[in-house]
Amino acid sequence: MKSFNIQPLNKALQQDLQVKIDGKTKPLGALGKLEALALRIGMIQQSTKPKLTAPHVLVFAADHGIATQGVSAYPQEVTWQMVMNFIRGGAAINVFCRQHQIELHVVDAGVNHDFEDNLPGLIHQKIANGTQPFNLAPAMSLEQAGQAIDLGALVASRVYEAGCNIIGFGEMGIGNTSSASALMSVALDLPVERCVGKGTGLDDRGVNGKIDVLRQALQTNGRPDSPLGIMAAYGGFEIAQMAGAMLQAAEHSMTILVDGFICSAAFLMAQKMNALVGDYAVFSHCSGEKGHQLMLEALEADPLLDLNMRLGEGTGAAVAFPLIRSAVAFLNEMASFEEATVSTNIK
Amino acid sequence: MKSFNIQPLNKALQQDLQVKIDGKTKPLGALGKLEALALRIGMIQQSTKPKLTAPHVLVFAADHGIATQGVSAYPQEVTWQMVMNFIRGGAAINVFCRQHQIELHVVDAGVNHDFEDNLPGLIHQKIANGTQPFNLAPAMSLEQAGQAIDLGALVASRVYEAGCNIIGFGEMGIGNTSSASALMSVALDLPVERCVGKGTGLDDRGVNGKIDVLRQALQTNGRPDSPLGIMAAYGGFEIAQMAGAMLQAAEHSMTILVDGFICSAAFLMAQKMNALVGDYAVFSHCSGEKGHQLMLEALEADPLLDLNMRLGEGTGAAVAFPLIRSAVAFLNEMASFEEATVSTNIK
Repeated sequence: MKSFNIQPLNKALQQDLQVKIDGKTKPLGALGKLEALALRIGMIQQSTKPKLTAPHVLVFAADHGIATQGVSAYPQEVTWQMVMNFIRGGAAINVFCRQHQIELHVVDAGVNHDFEDNLPGLIHQKIANGTQPFNLAPAMSLEQAGQAIDLGALVASRVYEAGCNIIGFGEMGIGNTSSASALMSVALDLPVERCVGKGTGLDDRGVNGKIDVLRQALQTNGRPDSPLGIMAAYGGFEIAQMAGAMLQAAEHSMTILVDGFICSAAFLMAQKMNALVGDYAVFSHCSGEKGHQLMLEALEADPLLDLNMRLGEGTGAAVAFPLIRSAVAFLNEMASFEEATVSTNIK
Repeated sequence: MKSFNIQPLNKALQQDLQVKIDGKTKPLGALGKLEALALRIGMIQQSTKPKLTAPHVLVFAADHGIATQGVSAYPQEVTWQMVMNFIRGGAAINVFCRQHQIELHVVDAGVNHDFEDNLPGLIHQKIANGTQPFNLAPAMSLEQAGQAIDLGALVASRVYEAGCNIIGFGEMGIGNTSSASALMSVALDLPVERCVGKGTGLDDRGVNGKIDVLRQALQTNGRPDSPLGIMAAYGGFEIAQMAGAMLQAAEHSMTILVDGFICSAAFLMAQKMNALVGDYAVFSHCSGEKGHQLMLEALEADPLLDLNMRLGEGTGAAVAFPLIRSAVAFLNEMASFEEATVSTNIK
């Protein structure tokens, strides 16, 4: 597995950016989170005139052996069916990417289905046809986990070379809230029941069954010491590839736009591998999935939206994208008090 | 003053809309507030295929005599200076309207400044050069309040005739958080200190001074019985014109996009005049101004954004606008389970 050379943000520019923000024709701080966002993007790009270029959403898809253990409201075949829906342009993420002129790629990181070659927008880098049921055995080998990190990194570099400097991350994989809950529980040392929600729509009985399966999984695999060990025990191929792509995006000084619960679990693992990835992240929304808010608190993240969405696919990231454009736009386009000859406050 | 003939929403279409939303390729309810929003817009337009046409933001500007009583962190001249900033395209609302292709008009409802004729985008319908200081006398006469409602209605009809079916409302007026706080306190029968915040940036001492001035105002003007009486006692010309424009927009079955604290106070007064206006409203955000959350609760409003913004100008409405586009887009463009041949849940 490659190691990632992520630079900490150079703080020298922070004051210049803050002065520029404070000089705009508005009361101090009146644009709220958009101001913090403008500062963050400026720092990531090391520019007082940041630009968003060739924005992409990458949806990583894979299957999970755990889905056969009664943890999901939907059958496993929905993973590949939804990948086909992405390719045909009919899913929510297609709609929102079209709306915001975001380029969408779908990555087959390990879907239990043989896709044809040359499907438009599909990147083939399958590790295997789904993971093992991780209540019975580790989800994948350490070697597979490392391979997934490297392949994820490759996609991030590919879009970077195409001129992209901001990536929204998304995922599809029936069963992957179970994987994300287990990763969260182990990585943050939290009781499993605080990390488990309804996923795609379990009832209370279903949620209790899911908790039982995850408790069994923790007995089977324990708490590995290394982030890669945790990923191998409980992860998914799409989650591991996402983590690799996030680390690589940070190495390229790109902005990482984190989606919901599963995407945040991938980010949590990426941060365990290299804490500096956090400097490059923007959290798009707080999902309706129970556990996400707690995970965001652990990450000290302040998400932009709270729309009770819980769809995945990167939809939260895509829907939040215009806010990031707004932050960059006010920084670049708004007049200062001086330029507009507007009086400043009385003191 | 004209009376408004607002139709209650015909509920017959609600089930068709819900069936369409639930049939989309996503778990039930997984798009959260975007689903409620799609339902609302569909109901307003009485269509399962709603469209947003020629969106506008109307910024109503006026001055307030109360601003001379030490209630604001900025001098009164900032009102007209900011109107000129709007006209030149340098303010935050200009940036966000350009970003989202929203047409922006600024209405001089009563600014204490003589603007030249033919300034691009400025609509001249000044009632007077600002209101009276309402701690000493009513802000305006009943006749002026009625005239303002009528003139506001005129602008809404004008943009309706230009093909617009959604209006974002905004305002500019140094001192107008004081007016909004007083309206809120009287209309909702709440103690004034629960309705007062920092406005454009008062310190604690300034806030206390503002509360004292408002208490004095309540002693001067009391609690008039009629909504028009309350508006005349404590309102502003921009607030009254906004209320009239909202009522007229509802009469035309347009979607009303409510901005922050002052705009919500205008809406509150509009709703006191005709409760049916509520059917046509979407609340864009919860402002950072103290009192707004309480007002939203009283209005039973569920705002889309919570970005700690407190700028006014309609910026919250403009920044929330892509979410409304997203809601309409998923309703119109997403594939259904049937169309995409995706398996439904196991149940």
